[in-house]
Amino acid sequence: METKEVLVLRDILGTNKKIAGEIRAKLKEKGILAVNLMSSPGSGKTTLLENLSIRLKGRFRMGVIEGDIETERDADRIRAKGIPAWQITTGGACHLDARMVGKVLAEVPAELDFLFIENVGNLVCPASFDLGEALRFILLSSPEGDDKPKKYPEAFLSSQVLLLTKSDLIPHLPFEWERAKKEALEINPRLDVFKVSALTGEGMDELESFLIAALAEFRTSHA
Amino acid sequence: METKEVLVLRDILGTNKKIAGEIRAKLKEKGILAVNLMSSPGSGKTTLLENLSIRLKGRFRMGVIEGDIETERDADRIRAKGIPAWQITTGGACHLDARMVGKVLAEVPAELDFLFIENVGNLVCPASFDLGEALRFILLSSPEGDDKPKKYPEAFLSSQVLLLTKSDLIPHLPFEWERAKKEALEINPRLDVFKVSALTGEGMDELESFLIAALAEFRTSHA
Repeated sequence: METKEVLVLRDILGTNKKIAGEIRAKLKEKGILAVNLMSSPGSGKTTLLENLSIRLKGRFRMGVIEGDIETERDADRIRAKGIPAWQITTGGACHLDARMVGKVLAEVPAELDFLFIENVGNLVCPASFDLGEALRFILLSSPEGDDKPKKYPEAFLSSQVLLLTKSDLIPHLPFEWERAKKEALEINPRLDVFKVSALTGEGMDELESFLIAALAEFRTSHA
Repeated sequence: METKEVLVLRDILGTNKKIAGEIRAKLKEKGILAVNLMSSPGSGKTTLLENLSIRLKGRFRMGVIEGDIETERDADRIRAKGIPAWQITTGGACHLDARMVGKVLAEVPAELDFLFIENVGNLVCPASFDLGEALRFILLSSPEGDDKPKKYPEAFLSSQVLLLTKSDLIPHLPFEWERAKKEALEINPRLDVFKVSALTGEGMDELESFLIAALAEFRTSHA
């Protein structure tokens, strides 16, 4: 039986901040870029990951931690793409925390390139919990409306990247892309912004290039 | 200056359950049917209320309590329809609670027919907090996906009515209405289910009739 190195942390006790720090240090040591995906339910996080799994396959090693209140549905969708996925079922808790991620890391192999963490679908609570990620993405799907950034500012303020998802639906909606983007940038001018559709592929080349560049930068930075 | 009777509670101290009981008793005494609207961000709660305000106008007296993390945007939209609205800005809290509603009731006139309470956009946390409402509606918009009921069961379990919103978008989506309905009814077989579009008007006649019948039943029941 083959044995693989996994990401065992020294310690998963203490505050969320402390455990997130342990996770961040371990991922940095192994050169694994972790991305925390946050959004409302149904904004397209899993579909985005399915699309990325096809794009990155064969060139990069990708794994996914799935956070949900109930069911293993999202992890099953990712596994069906041939990508390792670990489900955290929170059983009612409205967000992931660093302790939950720290525990599941003991099953995650150490030779990954990208570790995506799909948070519980919730535009409010997950924003307050550092999971030790290098990058935080906030997804806003076009049917949710262009007025959302200022109504839910914390998620936009604490992220590095905004993905406007389901761009294919915009022709059928009272949605102004420029308004949503402007509002988000007023809250957080440093956001990198991408307009994507995982169904039609719009914007996915740009997002893929961004992720590959971010991985290279992450591995060479000394921060 | 005209003085109006408002809904002052005897007590807004104690547990959420106790305050919700006080609210429920006061609303029952005045014959006001309160409806708590719960959903993800951007599922169409405010647009639904705009549509209902036009339908009920002149025949019924309607008021709206708006819950949001930040901004008075939703209350402003309702006021623009000539309907009184009271904004609760939670400043970060991910749901309304009975104390917040109890406080704002002191501004709500006692001669209403319908009092709609639009909760914070969040499919998780609001489900755990009784606000003293007579009816709880869970809204699920078609772009969120037909797999959501079992992933977020508490909101469906604790509601009396399911509104499948944005039905006009279904032709553009990988969404099966029958699957969503079946899943929701497996969680809670007693749900009344409506498929509506506040934009095209689909299903709104049926919803309006349901609300008017519910008001009559509420006022004649001795529960």
